[in-house]
Amino acid sequence: MDHTKDIRDLTIVLAGTGRLAWHWPDMLALAGLRVAYVLGRSTDGVQELAAKAGSFGIMDPAHLPQAEDLFVILAVSDAAIQEVAGSLKGERRMMIHCSGSAVSEGITDGVCYPLQTFSRERQPAYNNIPFFLTAYRPDTEAILKQLVLMINGKFRFIDDDTRSRLHLAAVVVNNFTNHLVQLASEYLHGAGMSYQDLLPLLEETVYKLEEMDPGSAQTGPAVRRDLEVISKHLQMLQNHPALQDVYELMSRNLQEKYRHH
Amino acid sequence: MDHTKDIRDLTIVLAGTGRLAWHWPDMLALAGLRVAYVLGRSTDGVQELAAKAGSFGIMDPAHLPQAEDLFVILAVSDAAIQEVAGSLKGERRMMIHCSGSAVSEGITDGVCYPLQTFSRERQPAYNNIPFFLTAYRPDTEAILKQLVLMINGKFRFIDDDTRSRLHLAAVVVNNFTNHLVQLASEYLHGAGMSYQDLLPLLEETVYKLEEMDPGSAQTGPAVRRDLEVISKHLQMLQNHPALQDVYELMSRNLQEKYRHH
Repeated sequence: MDHTKDIRDLTIVLAGTGRLAWHWPDMLALAGLRVAYVLGRSTDGVQELAAKAGSFGIMDPAHLPQAEDLFVILAVSDAAIQEVAGSLKGERRMMIHCSGSAVSEGITDGVCYPLQTFSRERQPAYNNIPFFLTAYRPDTEAILKQLVLMINGKFRFIDDDTRSRLHLAAVVVNNFTNHLVQLASEYLHGAGMSYQDLLPLLEETVYKLEEMDPGSAQTGPAVRRDLEVISKHLQMLQNHPALQDVYELMSRNLQEKYRHH
Repeated sequence: MDHTKDIRDLTIVLAGTGRLAWHWPDMLALAGLRVAYVLGRSTDGVQELAAKAGSFGIMDPAHLPQAEDLFVILAVSDAAIQEVAGSLKGERRMMIHCSGSAVSEGITDGVCYPLQTFSRERQPAYNNIPFFLTAYRPDTEAILKQLVLMINGKFRFIDDDTRSRLHLAAVVVNNFTNHLVQLASEYLHGAGMSYQDLLPLLEETVYKLEEMDPGSAQTGPAVRRDLEVISKHLQMLQNHPALQDVYELMSRNLQEKYRHH
């Protein structure tokens, strides 16, 4: 492949049928692009996604065209990247993966990591997703940049180490926030209340962060060093040990951090 | 006061000049109501809020009218409620506080707890705030209900115990989520990245919770029991002990919870 290759001249192959793979055809559609082949291991998964994407569904990489330039998007689990990439290697094939944590120089030609949480049930605003790109070859850099620009997404090129850090931070704000809500939900359930009552608060907490940094936005008993409320809360959590542990650790952190305020 | 009293016939007094007090005049304006008096301890604070609200600013409760029925909103710190309420007691005075954690039967006539985080800098969507009400007298119940209906807010009457639980849950989802973002922000800062890159993800995490409960929405390495990623992350956090503690506890909780999935 030469540097002047255009993404529109490549045959796009999507490997994987999981949550992220499910969204690639729609993201590509924003760029006016179509997935030609969906490659996967489960017959049902491949058929379903291929039907949705208007693609050929295949389960054997040998059925891919040999004479065309392919752009292969690996949307598979970290553990499967190496094996699937190995089965797809070829001179006329540019391959990228989408994982935040997998390092793959020598295995793929680049990385396109959309920093977002994907579920089948919901379509996030694709043009609000920050794409973090890594290119191990100059032609991959050009193609990735063209692709994200066509999707109308925000992007930045970063190295493997920075992507790992971003992935860790994403786990913290996504999975751990969701876990906080789950703990609060279980706690409220005993009083006949629902976590839904907390959503306007949580939404406002997030909106505030668009206007002020988390240090300035912080409020609450731990920041005020209101030890009476904190110890009352810990008492109230006697029968909720998981939440009690989290409350204790978070409050200790916050008191430590805001000691001199 | 009799049961048929109308909020529009009462003279509204706002005690306090803090973050929540700052928003009461605007919330009342939605109901077509005006704060007649702002009462506070700091001259500057009283003057500023009274000017904003188009109210008389006073620092001595003795300057309040004796011959009118007053509706006093105590928007003061938990620690100050008892003292301020004591200085305002009177037969023609109905008094409520707005705290999630203070219990006040015998001290005030009711509670109007807006479950939201308030800052001077931002105006949350008032009509999206759930108001949790407690009435220690039937006439307070009628007035509180009328007030929130006029604001066009959602409301529910709850007892002191349920309000305490809600307050605890609010601390968890608001303060602790904000703290997670702060920890992630500090961690990213070292790599020249900003927490702002994480906001589309955090927003999507919250939007998902409107459509599916936190149990179904959960993703990530801990739920997948991806011990390799978890131990790599803990390694990466060696120089960030506060975040490492949080990561370790949260991941342990999540692995425990999703053990049988």
